[in-house]
Amino acid sequence: MTRRPLIVVSNRGPVSFGRDESGARVARRGAGGLATALRALLAREDVTWIASAISREDRALVAETGGVLEAGEAVPCRLRLLAHDPLAYDGYYNAVANPLLWFVQHSLYGLAEQPALDERFVQAWAGYAAVNNAFAEAVVAELDNDPHVAVFFHDYHLYLAPRAVRAVRPDALLAHFVHIPWPQSDAWTVLPEEQRRAVHDGLLANDLVGFHTHRWRRNFAACAADVLGAGRDREGRVVHGGRATMVTSRPISVDPGEFDALASSADVLDAEERIARTRRERLVVRVDRTDPAKNIVRGFTAFGLLLERHPEWLGRVSMLALLDPSRQDVPEYEAYRRAIEREAAAVNGRHAADGYEPIDLRIVDDFPLSIAGYKQYDVLLVNAVFDGLNLVAKEGPLVNDRAGVLVLSENVGAHEELGEWAVTVNPFDVLGQAEALHAALAMDASERERRADALAAQVRANDVGRWIDTLLGDLARVSA
Amino acid sequence: MTRRPLIVVSNRGPVSFGRDESGARVARRGAGGLATALRALLAREDVTWIASAISREDRALVAETGGVLEAGEAVPCRLRLLAHDPLAYDGYYNAVANPLLWFVQHSLYGLAEQPALDERFVQAWAGYAAVNNAFAEAVVAELDNDPHVAVFFHDYHLYLAPRAVRAVRPDALLAHFVHIPWPQSDAWTVLPEEQRRAVHDGLLANDLVGFHTHRWRRNFAACAADVLGAGRDREGRVVHGGRATMVTSRPISVDPGEFDALASSADVLDAEERIARTRRERLVVRVDRTDPAKNIVRGFTAFGLLLERHPEWLGRVSMLALLDPSRQDVPEYEAYRRAIEREAAAVNGRHAADGYEPIDLRIVDDFPLSIAGYKQYDVLLVNAVFDGLNLVAKEGPLVNDRAGVLVLSENVGAHEELGEWAVTVNPFDVLGQAEALHAALAMDASERERRADALAAQVRANDVGRWIDTLLGDLARVSA
Repeated sequence: MTRRPLIVVSNRGPVSFGRDESGARVARRGAGGLATALRALLAREDVTWIASAISREDRALVAETGGVLEAGEAVPCRLRLLAHDPLAYDGYYNAVANPLLWFVQHSLYGLAEQPALDERFVQAWAGYAAVNNAFAEAVVAELDNDPHVAVFFHDYHLYLAPRAVRAVRPDALLAHFVHIPWPQSDAWTVLPEEQRRAVHDGLLANDLVGFHTHRWRRNFAACAADVLGAGRDREGRVVHGGRATMVTSRPISVDPGEFDALASSADVLDAEERIARTRRERLVVRVDRTDPAKNIVRGFTAFGLLLERHPEWLGRVSMLALLDPSRQDVPEYEAYRRAIEREAAAVNGRHAADGYEPIDLRIVDDFPLSIAGYKQYDVLLVNAVFDGLNLVAKEGPLVNDRAGVLVLSENVGAHEELGEWAVTVNPFDVLGQAEALHAALAMDASERERRADALAAQVRANDVGRWIDTLLGDLARVSA
Repeated sequence: MTRRPLIVVSNRGPVSFGRDESGARVARRGAGGLATALRALLAREDVTWIASAISREDRALVAETGGVLEAGEAVPCRLRLLAHDPLAYDGYYNAVANPLLWFVQHSLYGLAEQPALDERFVQAWAGYAAVNNAFAEAVVAELDNDPHVAVFFHDYHLYLAPRAVRAVRPDALLAHFVHIPWPQSDAWTVLPEEQRRAVHDGLLANDLVGFHTHRWRRNFAACAADVLGAGRDREGRVVHGGRATMVTSRPISVDPGEFDALASSADVLDAEERIARTRRERLVVRVDRTDPAKNIVRGFTAFGLLLERHPEWLGRVSMLALLDPSRQDVPEYEAYRRAIEREAAAVNGRHAADGYEPIDLRIVDDFPLSIAGYKQYDVLLVNAVFDGLNLVAKEGPLVNDRAGVLVLSENVGAHEELGEWAVTVNPFDVLGQAEALHAALAMDASERERRADALAAQVRANDVGRWIDTLLGDLARVSA
């Protein structure tokens, strides 16, 4: 089989445009784990990327050029930017994708009172459908250029687009990767029947749907049966509406070369020197967005419990929390950031003394500082409530210099791959997390080294290049 | 096969003791749907009931008599009351059973921050285990009297007792009925591994486990596989630790004769006369405990939306909400009651006029008034977030005089049995609930009658006597 050119479709593209100090238009690399991972694809494949015009400059570009940019110095691949209707985009992004789908898929709602879906939901869902249709139209335009391309959708912003493409291009090769958890069918009842059917029906318009873990993949297949009455064929594919969809689990990863280079960069060494100068005997590090799914408040509570139950650590261990501020225009996120600050202050209020501050909370977007934190940790705490994969659990062990221990939530996708070398915690059990931190801090050096070495070796052997290879292999299999 | 004598084991017994005005000890019938349903068993079977001593007078009786009371005028069956250690009972009842297990099994936690399991949880769980062990010891004492009795545990207070009995009486015949939903395995991760294994392992020490619906039964079997690695045998039984457990779904019901008699009783006719005197053209009724699972706040929001979207109903329809105050010493319940009052006041604040009050909120324990409400409704709203079965959905259609329409949540157990004659709603979709209320209020008379007649016929044909027969039939099958 010959390799097909690829169309990557995601809400955020590989670059976004702005203006530098001189007023000149510049392309900036997109943030976020997804954009980073997919960038590795660009080096190797013939890719067209379809994405939303997000910045004001992105939209100006669409107005000037129609939105199609050829690959060049600043643009790593052919790019088609879509300028959506602002009201539709607001419903799509700020109501349906976040918080609704994110909260449903990470099981974050307190269902006694939230959500209450009213006319605003109906309007927001119409926006979600409109933006998905706009993506589908752009895909169809690309397929008209070359019907042989493979289309690769990404994530929870685009559940409806594949069905819209399939409706007019029944023979297209369509794939989708979902980067967040797939909950079980009872959790999906938070969406009314029409919408939960549309989500599952939309994904099953693809020939291939990928998840990070066996757990999410299995939940999806079970949901397809419960929500749509979908069946399975002898190859294990999900069968719905006369078509079969292959469902795979392929955990995403990172580029070790990139992290090796970063670890010895001047910015990181500077930041590391600052940490090293002030750190105590032991350092617990967490690196997260300020997202309710990340379980930051319980992590601080657990650290406070550690100091209370094992006072021998007072003054000897501190926690460095490096938190990228996230979605602060969504009220639930802003409230969660305040809860983070309150709990850190409460623990520090109980245990700070003589220049010792137990929790060093930094709500800041500082990537070099995060890498420096990775190098310096004795314990890396990843205790998320639920998480599709969690790249922190892979990045940390790759560059850590201290045979640090990974404390890892059982509800994090990376636990399937890394759990045997981590100290497993239940995300709701703060006492258990406190005791896990103690066990990790007290672990003898040879055991720490054995685990740290195994973690780093596992991530190096299963890097993002391998992830892309397996995905492309899946794509080749379904197109065969 | 000869019929075996029964031991019923539940936290609340069929009676609880108090003192009347003259200071004489009196037995009072227990409240709650479970006690009511099981009372029907007492008329027919040779039953010993083991229950907690709950009132002060119950405990005094245990101190005086050892707790075993023979059946008599005030006591409908042989009764063994257990006076637990108060601290253990507090953890068992007020922390583990409510809110923890209740919230997990009804998916009510906002998992971003609640629960945070700390030392108090460990202590409370020890209390839960201690009370379960006390129940198990009492069961073993009864089995020593007669090894041939069948033991029938009830509900979420007693998940650990069956394993404790099985450990010392491997040949005992043990059954368990779970009256609340069984959520899917991801929801069970809210309990740390040790406790979620203990819950599933405890239930699988029974020969028979019953649920109200196929949905909860299927979830339980899947959880047994996910949590314990349990298998299935060719008869569909769940196999764990070398034993097989039959898992059945048997929806509980009510006694039509009891409700027919109630409907024409003086207290109910009085209450009905008061409703009839003040009611508007149409009446929406809800009857619930003030429990976050019951979805009362969203129901009020939906009623407000109905009046805003269909103003032709203003002044013509009101809602009578009859809410039994529930568990007001649990902070989550007290907060929820306040939210109920706030939302009712908000809707009334927008729409009350000229003696018209849209929502008539009564937080009161008044059973005759509830029956009167059942008789008078044009629409009965049962919109629970999740509910094991929900007897209101069966009681209402049995006595209603107005060909009233049942609006029923898809997440209520009774929906499996009654859904085809109800107007189905999604519990999170307040707009959908508003439109369902409108559709129900506007439904033409012949359609209303067709549905109301079918509902009443279904409940009469599948009454609590039939429920008991099928359960005893299951028990006979597993003991054969």
